[in-house]
Amino acid sequence: MTDVATPPSTFPVGPLNKVRKANRGHYDRETVFSIIDLGLVAHVGFVDQGRPVVMPMLCARIGETLYLHGARATRFFKRIGDTVPVCITVTHVDGIVVARCAFNHSINYRSAVVHGNARQITDEAELDAALVAVTDHLLPGRWDEVREMTEKERAATAVLAVDIETASAKIRSGPPIDDDPDYALAVWGGVVPVTTALGNPVEDGRGAVAMPIPASIERAILRRRR
Amino acid sequence: MTDVATPPSTFPVGPLNKVRKANRGHYDRETVFSIIDLGLVAHVGFVDQGRPVVMPMLCARIGETLYLHGARATRFFKRIGDTVPVCITVTHVDGIVVARCAFNHSINYRSAVVHGNARQITDEAELDAALVAVTDHLLPGRWDEVREMTEKERAATAVLAVDIETASAKIRSGPPIDDDPDYALAVWGGVVPVTTALGNPVEDGRGAVAMPIPASIERAILRRRR
Repeated sequence: MTDVATPPSTFPVGPLNKVRKANRGHYDRETVFSIIDLGLVAHVGFVDQGRPVVMPMLCARIGETLYLHGARATRFFKRIGDTVPVCITVTHVDGIVVARCAFNHSINYRSAVVHGNARQITDEAELDAALVAVTDHLLPGRWDEVREMTEKERAATAVLAVDIETASAKIRSGPPIDDDPDYALAVWGGVVPVTTALGNPVEDGRGAVAMPIPASIERAILRRRR
Repeated sequence: MTDVATPPSTFPVGPLNKVRKANRGHYDRETVFSIIDLGLVAHVGFVDQGRPVVMPMLCARIGETLYLHGARATRFFKRIGDTVPVCITVTHVDGIVVARCAFNHSINYRSAVVHGNARQITDEAELDAALVAVTDHLLPGRWDEVREMTEKERAATAVLAVDIETASAKIRSGPPIDDDPDYALAVWGGVVPVTTALGNPVEDGRGAVAMPIPASIERAILRRRR
């Protein structure tokens, strides 16, 4: 929407999103969005009859709005009324931090936590854009490689919009931080890297025509290699 | 605790844990626990003043109890009273399912969702066991490789116990399931595998003595290769 002013570059910090370990907290949109945009799954939390429920879902972003994709039959979608508060968390694990004492062990990671309100999409143009976004989130450009979506499929695809209220990111990187005397111990200290990678595509062999690997897959692989 | 009867092999199925897509739901302890035990992070949901909050945490298991580890300063631990309902979700992504139409795209994954109540640990023996469990969860046997935990560290380590109320797992695997006519299209269909792996350990170079890679790291690497 071109008539909306550019949002400030950082999210406001308040009780909902303040990261307690101040040196690991980030509130700028660039950091938060880069973590979300690379997420293969997001963990979406909502309250169902007073209890917390956390479900893995696909989460795509267009500007300041997140789109959650899941089967219409899930509890999440069934119980939705007008808007429902949600918390969307995406985490990338980068390493196991191996310290010289149990206490200083840690994980290197980048996580983004978004608080917002989920709503159903009533605007047809927004739904069109959302369907493209969730498809292209994992495989950039895939929407244009496949046949057009039928009306029946369109009606059966459940996509929710979440307007971001506030967000934060938390990042831990680097070696263990051990107590000074512990560096003298005969104990290994360092990091075991953890990587998530896309492997060689495996064709299902059911197509009438053998096809080369599409550009959308090449893009997805390249994007994660950087 | 040896005086407790062996639990049944499957969790009872009810409104809280029923998987809507029946052919993908699993309720046996072996499946649920194997997913949790390999998790590098768990996404823990709780309700804070009526709103959902989802945080990535370390989650280790001893029998029927999960132990969550996090800094004492987090909101989660601050607000805890007697017991607090939580939902603990662990997801492993195994592949991007590339279909011949947008609608049939999917993700291959294994997820476990546990519902339970978090409580603080008051029993010293349980706390001892929990501290070992959270340390050894990522690096099996690490506890025995490092110096003893000090009383101060012990007091500063926040571990919560979660008694499992019920749980389920959901698994999707295999190639895309396309509509029959779509197999005739000149469109690539198959799976892009997604793998999470531990890389070569990187020593921090700060120790007084250069040390060989410890057995706990070798075990962690081997465990994920299987």
